[in-house]
Amino acid sequence: MIVAMAGGVGGAKLADGLARCIGTELTVIVNTGDDFEHLGLHISPDLDTVMYTLAGIANPATGWGIAGETWNTLEHVARLGGPDWFKLGDRDLATHILRTQRLRGGERLTDITAGLCSALGLPARVLPMSDDPVRTIVQSGADRYPFQDYFVRLKCAVPVTALHFEGVASARPSREVEAALTDPSLTAIVLCPSNPYLSIDPILAVPGMRLLIGKAGVPVVAVSPIIGGAAVKGPAAKIMAELGVTPSVTGIAEHYRGLIDGLMIDAVDADLAGGIEAMGIRVRTAPILMRTNEDRRKLAEECITFAMALAS
Amino acid sequence: MIVAMAGGVGGAKLADGLARCIGTELTVIVNTGDDFEHLGLHISPDLDTVMYTLAGIANPATGWGIAGETWNTLEHVARLGGPDWFKLGDRDLATHILRTQRLRGGERLTDITAGLCSALGLPARVLPMSDDPVRTIVQSGADRYPFQDYFVRLKCAVPVTALHFEGVASARPSREVEAALTDPSLTAIVLCPSNPYLSIDPILAVPGMRLLIGKAGVPVVAVSPIIGGAAVKGPAAKIMAELGVTPSVTGIAEHYRGLIDGLMIDAVDADLAGGIEAMGIRVRTAPILMRTNEDRRKLAEECITFAMALAS
Repeated sequence: MIVAMAGGVGGAKLADGLARCIGTELTVIVNTGDDFEHLGLHISPDLDTVMYTLAGIANPATGWGIAGETWNTLEHVARLGGPDWFKLGDRDLATHILRTQRLRGGERLTDITAGLCSALGLPARVLPMSDDPVRTIVQSGADRYPFQDYFVRLKCAVPVTALHFEGVASARPSREVEAALTDPSLTAIVLCPSNPYLSIDPILAVPGMRLLIGKAGVPVVAVSPIIGGAAVKGPAAKIMAELGVTPSVTGIAEHYRGLIDGLMIDAVDADLAGGIEAMGIRVRTAPILMRTNEDRRKLAEECITFAMALAS
Repeated sequence: MIVAMAGGVGGAKLADGLARCIGTELTVIVNTGDDFEHLGLHISPDLDTVMYTLAGIANPATGWGIAGETWNTLEHVARLGGPDWFKLGDRDLATHILRTQRLRGGERLTDITAGLCSALGLPARVLPMSDDPVRTIVQSGADRYPFQDYFVRLKCAVPVTALHFEGVASARPSREVEAALTDPSLTAIVLCPSNPYLSIDPILAVPGMRLLIGKAGVPVVAVSPIIGGAAVKGPAAKIMAELGVTPSVTGIAEHYRGLIDGLMIDAVDADLAGGIEAMGIRVRTAPILMRTNEDRRKLAEECITFAMALAS
C-alpha cells in the first residue's frame, strides 16, 4: 500500500502513474485548502483534478476540468449577470452540484468523494485531507486573498508574503486518512510534484498529519515540482522567490527537510544532488517531467523503486 | 396596464402575445406552486417558462426550456449516480444556480426574478405570485405527490382526487403584486389559458388575491385552455374528468364563475356559449390555439378588445 499526497495538476499526474502501477493499493490524500464556495456551489478543485485524472477524463490540454467539455451554463450565467471568471464546464458542474447537495445534507466530504470516485470507476482511493474546512489565504503585504481570487481571478499577479490555512488549527485528519497512514501494509509515502506551499503544506498543516507520517515508519519520497529552477506548471518558483527561497531543487529539499527521506529530481539538476544529500536526504535523478501517460507510469515506478531502496 | 396570470407553456404564449401588443404595460403574475428543490437547486418551472418565452429564447418544440439547449451537466449527473428524471439543460441550469444562490443569500424571489428578466431584456414585468413558498401537492386516493413527482416523474399517470397548495394559508401577495392589481391605470386582468387547477388556482389561492382582483374593478377575462373538450397541452381535461367535471369550456366557465366577466373560447365550442352566458359570463369566440408568434399577438389583441368591450 502506498499513500500519495497531492494537490492539482502535477500531483494528479503522478497519482495517476501510481494508480497505473498499483491500482487499488493506492490511496491519494488530497489538498482541500483550495476549496471554496462559488455560485452557491462547493468546489474542490484539487479533489476534482485528481478524480478526473485518475478516471481518465481530465482535459489533457489544461490538466484541470473534463476533456471535451462545453461551457453553456457558464455562458448563460454571464448573460444573466453572474460571475464567469472561474471556469466551470457543463460536465464539471454535475460534480459540484451533487457534492454541494450532499454536503448540505450533512454527508462528509470523504464519503461524497468516495461515491463520486466509485461512479467514475476509479481504482485508487481518493481522500480529502480532512472533512473539516480549511481555506488557504494568500497574504500580499496588507492584503489577504482567498486562494481562488489569487490563483484564478488575479492570475497570481500579486507577490505572496505569507500563506495562511484558515481553520486548520481545528481540522483533523479523517479516520480514513488516519487508517491509511497507520495501515500495517503501508510501504511508502509519496509527496507528489504539487506546489509545496499551496498544495502540500495545507495537507501537512492538518494537526496530527506530520506525526502520522513520522510514525508510519516508511520511506517518505518527494518528487520535485521544480526542474532547472523553474516550476513545471503554476507559481511554485515565483512564490519561492517571493518568500526569499531560491527556486531550485535545493529549496524544495530545504522545505521538506526533516519530513522526507528521499527527493526525486530531474537529471538537469544532478549537480545539486550533493548539497541535498548533505542535508540527510537521499536523491534519485529521473525524467520527472510527465508529458504522456507512460511518463507518469515510469515516474511512479521510479518512486516505488526509490522507496524500496530507501527501506532496505 | 394589463395584469396577466399565467402558469407554464400555454399561459406563457398568451403572455408573450400581450407583451408583443403592450410591452412594458404588461405585468405577468406567475404560479410558483410548481416550484421545488431538486439537486439542491431551487427550480421555478413556470417563472422560467414565462421568462424564456417572453425573452424569445424558449424551446419552440417543448414550450419549456431554452432553444438549442445542451444536456451535458445532466448526463454527467446521471453518470455520477444522481437523478436525471427532471430535465435540466445546461443553459437553463444557470438560471437555477443563480436563483438558488440569491435565495440562500436572503433575496426575495420577486427581486431575483426582476434581475433575471432585466438581464434577458424582457419588456414586461414578471412577478411570482408570492415570495412565500407554496407547494402544490397532488392527492391520488391515499397518496400525496409533490407536483413535479406527479407531473414529470409519474407523467400524470395517477388519477387526481384532490389538489393541495401547501403553505398557501400563510402566503401573501408580494407588494409588487398588490401594487399591480391596485394600479389606477390597470384596465384588465387576463387569466391565461393555463391549467385552471394546477396553474391558476394556486395564484388565486394566495390569501387576498381574489379580493385584489375583485376590488380592481376592471374586466377579468379568461382564455379557455380547453378546445373541443380536449386540453391544448397537459392534463387539464384529464384532471377535470377525474374531479368529476366535464372537460369543456362550460366546465372552465363553472370553475371561474364569480371571478371572471368574460371567457374566450374557440369557434368549435360556439354551441356552448349560450349556457356560459346564462351564468353571467360573456363569451367571445376566436382562434385560441396559438401555433405561431402571430397567433399569440392576435389572441392577445382579441383579449384586449374583449376586455375593452366588457368595460364599456
